[in-house]
Amino acid sequence: MTRSKDSLFRDNIARMEGYAPGEQPQNIGWIKLNTNENPYPPSPSVAETVEKAARGRLQVYPDPLAKRFCEVAAEVMGCDADCILPANGSDENLTILMRTFVEAGESIAFPYPSYSLYRTLAEIQGANSIPIPLTTDWSWNWELTKASLQKAKIVFVPNPNSPSGNLWSVDEMIALAPPNGILVVDQAYIDFADDSQFEELWNSEIADRLVVTRSLSKSYSLAGIRMGFAVAKPELISGMRKVKDSYNCNTLSLAAGAAALEDREWMRHNTHRIRETRSRLMAELQAMGFQTNPSQANFVWATHPSEAHRTIYEQLKKQKILVRFMWYESLENPQEKPIDGLRISIGTDEDIDRLLSVLKEIV
Amino acid sequence: MTRSKDSLFRDNIARMEGYAPGEQPQNIGWIKLNTNENPYPPSPSVAETVEKAARGRLQVYPDPLAKRFCEVAAEVMGCDADCILPANGSDENLTILMRTFVEAGESIAFPYPSYSLYRTLAEIQGANSIPIPLTTDWSWNWELTKASLQKAKIVFVPNPNSPSGNLWSVDEMIALAPPNGILVVDQAYIDFADDSQFEELWNSEIADRLVVTRSLSKSYSLAGIRMGFAVAKPELISGMRKVKDSYNCNTLSLAAGAAALEDREWMRHNTHRIRETRSRLMAELQAMGFQTNPSQANFVWATHPSEAHRTIYEQLKKQKILVRFMWYESLENPQEKPIDGLRISIGTDEDIDRLLSVLKEIV
Repeated sequence: MTRSKDSLFRDNIARMEGYAPGEQPQNIGWIKLNTNENPYPPSPSVAETVEKAARGRLQVYPDPLAKRFCEVAAEVMGCDADCILPANGSDENLTILMRTFVEAGESIAFPYPSYSLYRTLAEIQGANSIPIPLTTDWSWNWELTKASLQKAKIVFVPNPNSPSGNLWSVDEMIALAPPNGILVVDQAYIDFADDSQFEELWNSEIADRLVVTRSLSKSYSLAGIRMGFAVAKPELISGMRKVKDSYNCNTLSLAAGAAALEDREWMRHNTHRIRETRSRLMAELQAMGFQTNPSQANFVWATHPSEAHRTIYEQLKKQKILVRFMWYESLENPQEKPIDGLRISIGTDEDIDRLLSVLKEIV
Repeated sequence: MTRSKDSLFRDNIARMEGYAPGEQPQNIGWIKLNTNENPYPPSPSVAETVEKAARGRLQVYPDPLAKRFCEVAAEVMGCDADCILPANGSDENLTILMRTFVEAGESIAFPYPSYSLYRTLAEIQGANSIPIPLTTDWSWNWELTKASLQKAKIVFVPNPNSPSGNLWSVDEMIALAPPNGILVVDQAYIDFADDSQFEELWNSEIADRLVVTRSLSKSYSLAGIRMGFAVAKPELISGMRKVKDSYNCNTLSLAAGAAALEDREWMRHNTHRIRETRSRLMAELQAMGFQTNPSQANFVWATHPSEAHRTIYEQLKKQKILVRFMWYESLENPQEKPIDGLRISIGTDEDIDRLLSVLKEIV
């Protein structure tokens, strides 16, 4: 809330480093297992729909309420269309949530380690971050957790979590709702899990303080078009709508997103294949001496007794295979070690074969 | 910065009404002269490029730095690519500017009447708005203006202005730079003006505190794809980049936008036609007794001695012709009357013929 005299920027902006997205090489020839993209293309109806929209009236603004997309998303979720807020990627909904519910100086909470964007968004808003340290097996320390929820205006929980890939139970989600704020369940990876959990959450006693966010980037193979949506009771959605840009979703992405949501058969076929490959990857990694965490997402968290995670990442990169090296500083206890490891996205069977064969040379 | 005990929302969000975009009927049969869209389609290379991108790899994220788009935009502006920040519509850049440079409790300034979104964005940020009242002929009262600039962290100036359509001089722009903040020259309509002013601004003594915003919605006929960009010195751009979502621009719109910027011949052909139609519309309106303001944009501000602007708007709407009825409350002096009138976008010659023939029946 203060500002250095010599800077035009807000102090928190000048100080912060900014969120670092995963590497996105723009040339081909890479096996990309670093940003949890789907290795399979989207439904063929997406390209057809986009081509039709591209020959339509691009000179006019999109529908600011995105009525058609909301109807299709509502059908997917089993709720009313006024419970849906489409966004320019699920990240935009996280930004909108922060700007709608959290004042500068107030606090948000989130499990740690998890998606690092929550902290970045808090820094931009001038809000405080309360990371809730998970136990070494990615469970909640409830005593510590309950205390952290008291002050939070938003609790963000990715479920399945990243980088660990585990799915917490519906009861745990409900227990994470802050008494004076909003629980955001970030379900970017839920289509890769055994259970969507949505219906139970939606009918639970915390439904009035619940926002579920969904992404089309992962299971629907549409990271390129930037479409996500939030699901919440209409009172929450209408407040969030005041904060969004009027025309936050473009004509082409709205059409592409609706087409993808209408072809769930295609999505399910791909998530099924990815789950099969995931089982195989985990078994093979374990056979090579890695420890893996049971994954309900389209990636696997792997650590090696050698602890040479950065070296393994670098060696793979030399062979044009990108995985994500993750490093999380230790929070409380300086005796504790930082957490690091490899987050490996599930590619095609061919991608994974290549990864495993190179790994066998390295490890 | 405070919060009612019974609301989950931030107080300023709960209080505010939200920005009201122009009506966007989703069914056909309307003559839309209300949101300054281009009546002509974009370059044919846009559809070709989008079709190619749609058959490409939509399952991967876009380039977070949008390198290719930045290079093309830099070529258009005659600057380096690191001076360009692409955005999900120029509105997103206005949002990013507010979040980068203005703390809650600080102030922004803008001419009044002008684009009402500036005030909305200030409300969301918890910042104060200092509207600078223009004289009745849309000029600056410099004594009043200079005082307002002192406290402003950002001064937003649309040039050409909306709803008036006039273009202020480069010298006036330079005089509007706040001593301790940023001047944002919002050039959404500049391609319809006699002079782009960019080179002079870019080489002026205020260049280090200058951000120019451009839109592809109007002159490039691409309101549907949501693409705009900001131009500023790299130090300012790199700070703004920390605030934007990583993947704020999608693959399809980036490709479409670059294709449009590369076919400036097409854009110039359309802006030329629109300027011709603009001259004719202004002459005909004057002949019917309207007062019009000299326009350098793709719309005309018209008032009628009867002052029955709302009635005219409603009568036109009954005939499926949409223009924008604008009403601005009086700022300082309660003796002064509010300002109202009609902002009429320039359509095709056929659209304008139809408008004029219906207007002749009404007025």
